[in-house]
Amino acid sequence: MSKQERATRTRCALIRSAAAVFERHGYVQARLALISSGAGVSTGALHFHFENKAAVAAAVAAEASRSLRAVSCRIRRRKSTALQALTDTSHALADLLRRDAVTRAGFRLSCDGDRIAEPDLRAEWQSFVRELLDEAADEGALVDGVSRKDMAAAIVAATTGFEVLGRRDPEWLSPYSLTGFWQLMLPRLAVPEALALLNPAGADAAGAGPGMGLLAESVCGASQYSEPEPTARF
Amino acid sequence: MSKQERATRTRCALIRSAAAVFERHGYVQARLALISSGAGVSTGALHFHFENKAAVAAAVAAEASRSLRAVSCRIRRRKSTALQALTDTSHALADLLRRDAVTRAGFRLSCDGDRIAEPDLRAEWQSFVRELLDEAADEGALVDGVSRKDMAAAIVAATTGFEVLGRRDPEWLSPYSLTGFWQLMLPRLAVPEALALLNPAGADAAGAGPGMGLLAESVCGASQYSEPEPTARF
Repeated sequence: MSKQERATRTRCALIRSAAAVFERHGYVQARLALISSGAGVSTGALHFHFENKAAVAAAVAAEASRSLRAVSCRIRRRKSTALQALTDTSHALADLLRRDAVTRAGFRLSCDGDRIAEPDLRAEWQSFVRELLDEAADEGALVDGVSRKDMAAAIVAATTGFEVLGRRDPEWLSPYSLTGFWQLMLPRLAVPEALALLNPAGADAAGAGPGMGLLAESVCGASQYSEPEPTARF
Repeated sequence: MSKQERATRTRCALIRSAAAVFERHGYVQARLALISSGAGVSTGALHFHFENKAAVAAAVAAEASRSLRAVSCRIRRRKSTALQALTDTSHALADLLRRDAVTRAGFRLSCDGDRIAEPDLRAEWQSFVRELLDEAADEGALVDGVSRKDMAAAIVAATTGFEVLGRRDPEWLSPYSLTGFWQLMLPRLAVPEALALLNPAGADAAGAGPGMGLLAESVCGASQYSEPEPTARF
């Protein structure tokens, strides 16, 4: 293994360890010694990669953002409708939040408390929802008489709620919960012809379960989504 | 002023000061000295009322719960339909979250992080939403073909999202945001005859603004909702 590969592995191990420590103790009480020992390295090795705790937190948020962008790009490549892509991505986000501590910690770090890590995952998710609704409007898929702003707000608020409530009870992030939400919501968004083509359980539901078709090794080696495309919006 | 009245005033001042300190610094970093000085009393006076920081946090959550139960009882006394009462109470909750630091801190304390203050406000709100939907079903107001569990989950998730997102941007808690949400949601919940009678802006909207008709002095003297009824579910 080259020196470069070893450094990348250590950095990823530190990010994964930091996510677990942030999730368990919160940002304020997270100790760098605990993060480095969780990654099996010295605090000196941690400081080689990160200047301070804020830099570690930013790296966790960046890795979570990258995972989300990657899965979103993969879904967009299917060339499905915008509303199906929105539904599928929300399922994939819930799946990430259920299974990946880096995504969970990234959302908490970038959203809670006074300290906000960059990138702000919740702001990115809001932009993504708005963009897909704009696309759905261009496709002629949205009903008349309902404000697009209200649609976006309801979807962003509900998915934020699923994320927050799922911290204590993962059932909120189950495919059933998300499917139930879209079964309720899609008839208020889509015209009948578009609605008939939509699957509230996500386009992956008939296969190996939501998001499973998207699984691959990520940069940080966790069982995560693949294909980083750092230039794309997630 | 009697000794008893002075003690009640001090306790309330401590609760209001604690809410402000918890909101600003978070529970972990909140210092008791800051809470007592904010209330204009010594730390000794604080310890006369509260054993430790956890007891202060529990008192903040209890006061927030009491405000919510009070406003809910007041709304229920109007004998409107269950769906209108649910809509009105969500507007009143948003109004409390916008204007009252004790309610905001109570929700954060009872919901975030590892430490959960009792009462758990979010669990209370979930029970309340489920109960009103059950009542709406008894009234024959709910549409067929949509699961009541999915309705409750969508409402709880979205209102949780409004609360969390409103911490950074109060616009999420504005009457417009809540009204937009109910305009989108109610047609998926209510049969046409029930829908025709519902006001998504809340029954107070035509008057002095959402919730204004409910305002009065609270036990803790803030500009809050009145009529404590500790035995009722909020």
